[in-house]
Amino acid sequence: MIISTLKLDDEYRQMIEEKFPELDIKHIKLSDLTEEELAKVEILFTYGYDMKEENVKKMTNLKWVHIGQSGMDSLPFDTLAKNNIFLTNSKGINSVTIAEYVMCMMLNHIRNTFVFYEANKRKEWDKFTHLDELAGKTIGIFGLGMVGKEIAKRAKAFDMTTYGLNIVKDPIDNIDLIFTPDERIEMLKICDYVVICMPLTNETKYIISKKELEAMKSTAILLNVGRGPIIKTTELIDCLNHQGIAGAILDVFETEPLEADSPLWSMENVLITPHIAGDRQASYMPRMMNILCNNLEKYPNFHEMKNAINLKFGF
Amino acid sequence: MIISTLKLDDEYRQMIEEKFPELDIKHIKLSDLTEEELAKVEILFTYGYDMKEENVKKMTNLKWVHIGQSGMDSLPFDTLAKNNIFLTNSKGINSVTIAEYVMCMMLNHIRNTFVFYEANKRKEWDKFTHLDELAGKTIGIFGLGMVGKEIAKRAKAFDMTTYGLNIVKDPIDNIDLIFTPDERIEMLKICDYVVICMPLTNETKYIISKKELEAMKSTAILLNVGRGPIIKTTELIDCLNHQGIAGAILDVFETEPLEADSPLWSMENVLITPHIAGDRQASYMPRMMNILCNNLEKYPNFHEMKNAINLKFGF
Repeated sequence: MIISTLKLDDEYRQMIEEKFPELDIKHIKLSDLTEEELAKVEILFTYGYDMKEENVKKMTNLKWVHIGQSGMDSLPFDTLAKNNIFLTNSKGINSVTIAEYVMCMMLNHIRNTFVFYEANKRKEWDKFTHLDELAGKTIGIFGLGMVGKEIAKRAKAFDMTTYGLNIVKDPIDNIDLIFTPDERIEMLKICDYVVICMPLTNETKYIISKKELEAMKSTAILLNVGRGPIIKTTELIDCLNHQGIAGAILDVFETEPLEADSPLWSMENVLITPHIAGDRQASYMPRMMNILCNNLEKYPNFHEMKNAINLKFGF
Repeated sequence: MIISTLKLDDEYRQMIEEKFPELDIKHIKLSDLTEEELAKVEILFTYGYDMKEENVKKMTNLKWVHIGQSGMDSLPFDTLAKNNIFLTNSKGINSVTIAEYVMCMMLNHIRNTFVFYEANKRKEWDKFTHLDELAGKTIGIFGLGMVGKEIAKRAKAFDMTTYGLNIVKDPIDNIDLIFTPDERIEMLKICDYVVICMPLTNETKYIISKKELEAMKSTAILLNVGRGPIIKTTELIDCLNHQGIAGAILDVFETEPLEADSPLWSMENVLITPHIAGDRQASYMPRMMNILCNNLEKYPNFHEMKNAINLKFGF
């Protein structure tokens, strides 16, 4: 049995039906399946949020799971590995969009765009506000997956100095210098912009905490487009409150939507966006369906599928 | 006599004095000079606004004028040519800054940044607003001088299709296809973003008028970082009022500051910035002084100077 909990629009359901007329794909929630039905699921298309340990254990016939997004921090990797389930995801479909968000927000910061935008609303010709350029500034990219590489490509075209944090030091296009996670303090000391775009794993949780924030320049800006819990929010708020860094641009949070009473909402040196860096763009679904259909066509030849995930590393 | 009307800060006056201790440079307004003194001026450093025809005629000994900006549309080129005066300007010092402005504003448009910014101010987690990417969109660059080339370099790194308008069709890095001014209607029909970054000359004045605006896509955005009179403002306003194009992002105007009663101020599909695309950045004066000092060192070897201007073409 093939189950999709992706809540696909009709046009995408039809697209699959036309490409795979012999297959019967059920569009349903996992919670609407009986235990007997769960035991018959062989292929599952999901965003991952319904992949609770108890559900996975009941799907005793499950062979392949495709995740309709890049993030997979909610998955029970150990159980998937134990049950020998093959996992693919949709990494890459939003790396360009996220890179555009990062460049957009760095440019808005360096150019004081919102000051000029507010003056425009007041019909005022602002004669005094100054600005600066990204050219010559330094960006430190935490995570050199597809998102990090797309950011680096654009930052380099803007004549920025590019540093990257990665597990290994193999050279990567458009990255001037690579630091390992153990060297992160040295890296943080010299960056004007620090961008978090790594997956959330046991190793990356709270990798930006008090010690890391204290290492950053007081003029530096921290951007998070990865996952909320990569940064220890309480310590970020402390740091911002005493101007330890110049500001934060946050698209992801430890709780989403961000709690209504979070002090972040009203901090002058914080810009909050509602998890849109890599979402809601017109290209998302077409790209996601492209990977899904490609992999469905290859099934059960797992080695020919795109975006296979190493269950041990979690990415 | 060497005159500077650039209103240089003390640090830059000292910089010149230290580099050229034998020279006596007077920092003054032209209007504070007597006719006798004007007749003795051999070298003039100016932003150009005081280069009135009558002033130039009185400076009978003038050999070299250096302009402290890129724009030169206020200069009496014919008189300068007749009097055999050598002209240099500061082109290139703000081409990077202007390119950053253009990328910043295109990104803000495609990503609906100001919608999310307003939601942030209301402490609201916007769940509905969609966005798009620059990747795959088409930019038409009117003017392939240093600014146009810097824009093209960045647009290409964003995987945009790049068209350029130029007098000749010689290939230029990062430009996919070049159109001549006579072919501009064909070019305008196929662009998602049209960026004006050419100098104001007799040939470019009102080069964007009703006919050109009508050729543009109804979804297109027009950006002007060149000079106000390149676009016929009344016809742009008409076009915007009937949604002939999707919007305009304007940094320069036929009158600056923009008149308080201009309808542009309150139009929903217009963003106004106060001539800051290539101005007010921290790097402006150091770069300007660098060219000025380089050229002063070469004087009177004009052929060794940077940024010589062809008085016939006006750029």
